Amino acid sequence: MAKPELADSKTCPFCPGNEEKTPPAESVYTEAGVLADGSERVRNWRARVFPNLFAAMVPKPTPPTAEWIALPGHGFHEVIVDSPDHGIGPADFSGDQLALIFEVYRDRYSHYRRMSSVSYISIFKNWGDAAGASMSHTHSQLIAIPIVPPLIKRETTALSSASFCIYCNIVEREISSSRLIASNDNWVLIAPFYSIAPYETWILPKGHISDLMSMDEDAERDLGQILGDALRRMKSLLDDPPFNYMIFQLPSDYHLNIRIQPSLTKMAGFEKSTGVYINPVPPEQAAAELRMA
Amino acid sequence: MAKPELADSKTCPFCPGNEEKTPPAESVYTEAGVLADGSERVRNWRARVFPNLFAAMVPKPTPPTAEWIALPGHGFHEVIVDSPDHGIGPADFSGDQLALIFEVYRDRYSHYRRMSSVSYISIFKNWGDAAGASMSHTHSQLIAIPIVPPLIKRETTALSSASFCIYCNIVEREISSSRLIASNDNWVLIAPFYSIAPYETWILPKGHISDLMSMDEDAERDLGQILGDALRRMKSLLDDPPFNYMIFQLPSDYHLNIRIQPSLTKMAGFEKSTGVYINPVPPEQAAAELRMA
Repeated sequence: MAKPELADSKTCPFCPGNEEKTPPAESVYTEAGVLADGSERVRNWRARVFPNLFAAMVPKPTPPTAEWIALPGHGFHEVIVDSPDHGIGPADFSGDQLALIFEVYRDRYSHYRRMSSVSYISIFKNWGDAAGASMSHTHSQLIAIPIVPPLIKRETTALSSASFCIYCNIVEREISSSRLIASNDNWVLIAPFYSIAPYETWILPKGHISDLMSMDEDAERDLGQILGDALRRMKSLLDDPPFNYMIFQLPSDYHLNIRIQPSLTKMAGFEKSTGVYINPVPPEQAAAELRMA
Repeated sequence: MAKPELADSKTCPFCPGNEEKTPPAESVYTEAGVLADGSERVRNWRARVFPNLFAAMVPKPTPPTAEWIALPGHGFHEVIVDSPDHGIGPADFSGDQLALIFEVYRDRYSHYRRMSSVSYISIFKNWGDAAGASMSHTHSQLIAIPIVPPLIKRETTALSSASFCIYCNIVEREISSSRLIASNDNWVLIAPFYSIAPYETWILPKGHISDLMSMDEDAERDLGQILGDALRRMKSLLDDPPFNYMIFQLPSDYHLNIRIQPSLTKMAGFEKSTGVYINPVPPEQAAAELRMA
């Protein structure tokens, strides 16, 4: 992937000093300190959240029309600039920064979860042009919508028809399989049996939790650790590939999971018309290579 | 899109003269003629069908294993070189060539439909690198698989729960809507109300037919005409964009349709994790621009 040019940081709207180029922040995470007089000070933001200037949805629902005419979708779309540093990528984040990012994700998820008009909250990162990132400065996005999207509905239908948690079952099976890549006290990193993309990986909590809000502090820190590990392995093995990671969560009756998909192949006519994916790399091979990376 | 270089035709395995570079043909469509002595001759192929050298599936099912290990998928994957001419694109095909292409599609569909191990047949064209075409010489592909894929199953579930044909209903509504682009005796070309890609178009038969085998000769010629019209409008308006077209058909209880999607945006984290698509171009606007093109 082309390295972002350093000159960008003068004009980049995601860089410190250029905050006026974005909509006003919804929230800012800073370095806190205590002054000599005992009062608090904040400086040097570490993450900034603001509405997407090119939002895919409008925050106020458009009144329906009698005619069939396409209308703007209703929802909320925000940008999470997850590092002030223009020159680094997500695989270079410190453990502290990764733990902070999950704190931000959790806060924003919690904010939208309370809204009665919101039925699903999608949090994801696009890294690299081929993965759909239009800005080179590292950032994540959150989209909150008033429907349960089709891929999630398909999952919840399957989950609710089973007498046990399918994801718990996956964790139990994969923890001793050739598709395990790494683990820590609270999480496993695997190449999933049904990998739809070459070198796809999933992060799953060992315990059955539905969403980021159900995590304790230890689990949050461990999650930052294992995501950092996953991103560094992928960067090293695949030469800093473009990728998406996507957080799958629901308030209840679900098992939180994070899916990381490098963009190494293109979606073409077959995938687009069937929902079936051609993956030339078996997950057992992907896991073996990622374990060595 | 970068024009294919003329020098390619010397080495291109899809060009006349290089047939030995592909697997042996399953079928060849030629210019037929009659010799002076009244006997028949064939020469100059117009379309060639052969197994994909890099097939996504294997023709013999792999025996299942006791362990959970990813195995090769079972199915058939073939290439349809739909013009001998290396230098032209699908929007440049003559009416005769377009009618021939649907004859080839119908023949190959009919061939695989009879196989008891085949549950779904996907026929599609990828044009341009960004749409997933790995060869610049124009071609289509057919993939026949032993399952009904998820996107098709979702459709048939919806169709079978309705008391009328949803597609017939769409044709009836769109034929007098602002999303109609063109029509002929047997077909309509529309920008669908639920367009998932900017400038997506659909071709639908006015009558209720399930698949290409249910077409008469007139309908087949008209289909070539309206596909040519759709491709020329798209090429002219969008400067020869990369695109996919995909034929949706089933042997029964379905309404044949062909979807054309230019690749102008990238699938990113939101689309991949939800199955919801962000489309910045309303279909009414797309149709208006394509009518003028």
